[in-house]
Amino acid sequence: MSVLQQNFQINFQYNIHFTEHVFSLQNAELLYMLKMAQQPGFTQRLLFVIDEQVQLLHPSLTSQIDEYFKAVNTIQVVREKIVIAGGEMAKNDLNYFNQIIEAINHHKIDRHSYLIAVGGGSVLDLAGYAAAVAHRGLRHIRIPTTVLSQGDSGVGVKNGINYLGKKNFLGTFSPPVAVFNDYHFLTTLTDRHWVSGISEAIKVALIKDGRFFEWLEEMADKIMQYDKAAMQYLIERCADLHIEHIGSGDPFELGSSRPLDFGHWSAHKIEQLSAFSIIHGEAVSIGIAIDSLYSFLVGSLAKDECIRILNLLLKFKLPIFNEILVSGANIQALLGGLQEFSEHLGGPLTIMLLNAIGQGYEVHEMNAVKIEQALSLLQKTYVDQERYELAEF
Amino acid sequence: MSVLQQNFQINFQYNIHFTEHVFSLQNAELLYMLKMAQQPGFTQRLLFVIDEQVQLLHPSLTSQIDEYFKAVNTIQVVREKIVIAGGEMAKNDLNYFNQIIEAINHHKIDRHSYLIAVGGGSVLDLAGYAAAVAHRGLRHIRIPTTVLSQGDSGVGVKNGINYLGKKNFLGTFSPPVAVFNDYHFLTTLTDRHWVSGISEAIKVALIKDGRFFEWLEEMADKIMQYDKAAMQYLIERCADLHIEHIGSGDPFELGSSRPLDFGHWSAHKIEQLSAFSIIHGEAVSIGIAIDSLYSFLVGSLAKDECIRILNLLLKFKLPIFNEILVSGANIQALLGGLQEFSEHLGGPLTIMLLNAIGQGYEVHEMNAVKIEQALSLLQKTYVDQERYELAEF
Repeated sequence: MSVLQQNFQINFQYNIHFTEHVFSLQNAELLYMLKMAQQPGFTQRLLFVIDEQVQLLHPSLTSQIDEYFKAVNTIQVVREKIVIAGGEMAKNDLNYFNQIIEAINHHKIDRHSYLIAVGGGSVLDLAGYAAAVAHRGLRHIRIPTTVLSQGDSGVGVKNGINYLGKKNFLGTFSPPVAVFNDYHFLTTLTDRHWVSGISEAIKVALIKDGRFFEWLEEMADKIMQYDKAAMQYLIERCADLHIEHIGSGDPFELGSSRPLDFGHWSAHKIEQLSAFSIIHGEAVSIGIAIDSLYSFLVGSLAKDECIRILNLLLKFKLPIFNEILVSGANIQALLGGLQEFSEHLGGPLTIMLLNAIGQGYEVHEMNAVKIEQALSLLQKTYVDQERYELAEF
Repeated sequence: MSVLQQNFQINFQYNIHFTEHVFSLQNAELLYMLKMAQQPGFTQRLLFVIDEQVQLLHPSLTSQIDEYFKAVNTIQVVREKIVIAGGEMAKNDLNYFNQIIEAINHHKIDRHSYLIAVGGGSVLDLAGYAAAVAHRGLRHIRIPTTVLSQGDSGVGVKNGINYLGKKNFLGTFSPPVAVFNDYHFLTTLTDRHWVSGISEAIKVALIKDGRFFEWLEEMADKIMQYDKAAMQYLIERCADLHIEHIGSGDPFELGSSRPLDFGHWSAHKIEQLSAFSIIHGEAVSIGIAIDSLYSFLVGSLAKDECIRILNLLLKFKLPIFNEILVSGANIQALLGGLQEFSEHLGGPLTIMLLNAIGQGYEVHEMNAVKIEQALSLLQKTYVDQERYELAEF
């Protein structure tokens, strides 16, 4: 009846580079990072996974990549690039996971080789998961190409794929070895993708940083006019708040502390109910609207602050409601999302609500009647709405 | 062109309990461990994965488990126990992985629930992998039931399944929350499984602890007569050396330091070439014989020490050769195993050899001619051999 105790620490360190034209011959940041990690006399092998959407918008990308590394004889790029359909599709279809795993095997990518993923959040989540489990973990570099992934998911430590109809049912906590946020990729985004990622910036501002929220209110028009400096600041501030939360808290969520998940319990479910025609950033926007209004209805958030939040979402032309939330069956499914959310995170249900703009707090239950009330208030006013008024109250 | 730096540490801590009759009502160790981890007001849910072989030898196990937890109203055991065919089969067939994942989903096992695996190394590796990726990681308790898993694989931080014909191609580094080594399960092992795990004890003694090797020489007869105290000491010493190496080194093998893999480059391949009819511990024994003889042939290990090693293996009736290593094609495949070994670990090939009993050292290449010479020396003498003599040299 004896006991041995195992006890150790693992240090994780990675840099998030804010750059432009990462594969231009004039930009040595990525090369420098790889050079610093190089073991003498040993060739670094790189396997690329590229988001099909990025490939279409940047048709010379693959030849640029080959060109970029050509002169470096200690780096060997696998000629075949793995191109994966972007969006949630990438995470829903297990064949994409298998395709990456088979390429890792076929090209003899080892644990000191690099899997470099270029794309939106879904392709990064998928590629990160494959990198995390092949040979018990390859070195993984992320090059996020959307507002959402550059400010939020791409700079964190999670990966995952959907399975058995559940969001991120399979995945791990596995920090990348580096992230390169290349602004150039944002210049080819559609309007829809330009704004959808902004919802995560609003979310993190709401629960962590009231001044950032005010900045977003002031700069909304500029950002909607594609102001580069404003968008660069938005992403960097969003990424900074995100990694600060991870690094100072419980990065692998081993205990009961919560991730930055305001507005997310419903967002995950809304994406699913729409068969992913509502993209993640849009679903988060609706989720923020629901939980802000709910915070007002339970008396924790002031009416004027609630209205400011809804109006900021509308200013960015982000959705605050969707007609799929009219049907009774879907509302029941949405409420069921609370249970799934709790299952995924484990432990007692914990939901973040707002005390004020810039200040979140946690609750362990939600009132279904008040959620439905919030939905019905949002429904009444969402069509062609430019400003939100809580006139009914 | 700015850079944000992410930097954090994760602490991992778990205990390895050496106990007997872990599910007896008189034994409170497991209950106590769960109680210590309990969040007030929250029910702990347990899902069991059981090795079919263990289930057959201990037919009352599942009812004992239900009985053990019955009186505790803060613990809820999932009635359906998942029974998985033991041995390498468990790791070769993806259906078993899916079966566990589906049960986790079906029974709403969350990240604060426990997946408890009872079985040999293969079932533990499979269950540990499923636990590591479901919801990005459930809490996982291991109850190893073989000499091999109690002293070696079950107390470490790795899990994995075989894929695309390669050993542990998919897996993670994910420490369990606790390990319970229950001696009672060893009493029903076949002779073959009683001795096969001893090869890992010999391995770790050879590279780390010459005095433990001498102890094994002295106690071999007692152990072969099923002496309980001797086997308990063997397992505890083996587990201790193993976790000490993990904890003081590079537990997740992020750098280039090597795991305790003496004799393993060939062992993995020998298992495969035999279609897993040679079990892991036996393959490790052959691997130790090959690398010890190789160490002698390259001049690093003294002849008498090499002979002592081979004779200790024979004393435990462990194999030092197998007829599958006679065919030229298989020998070529074995040599190809060096390349696969390097791919799996990443970086330049690194193999551990012996300077002396109790002292390993690393090399970065092996001489194919000398490997074949070692094989042919082993082949000449393996049949009905009770003592090994290097008469030819």
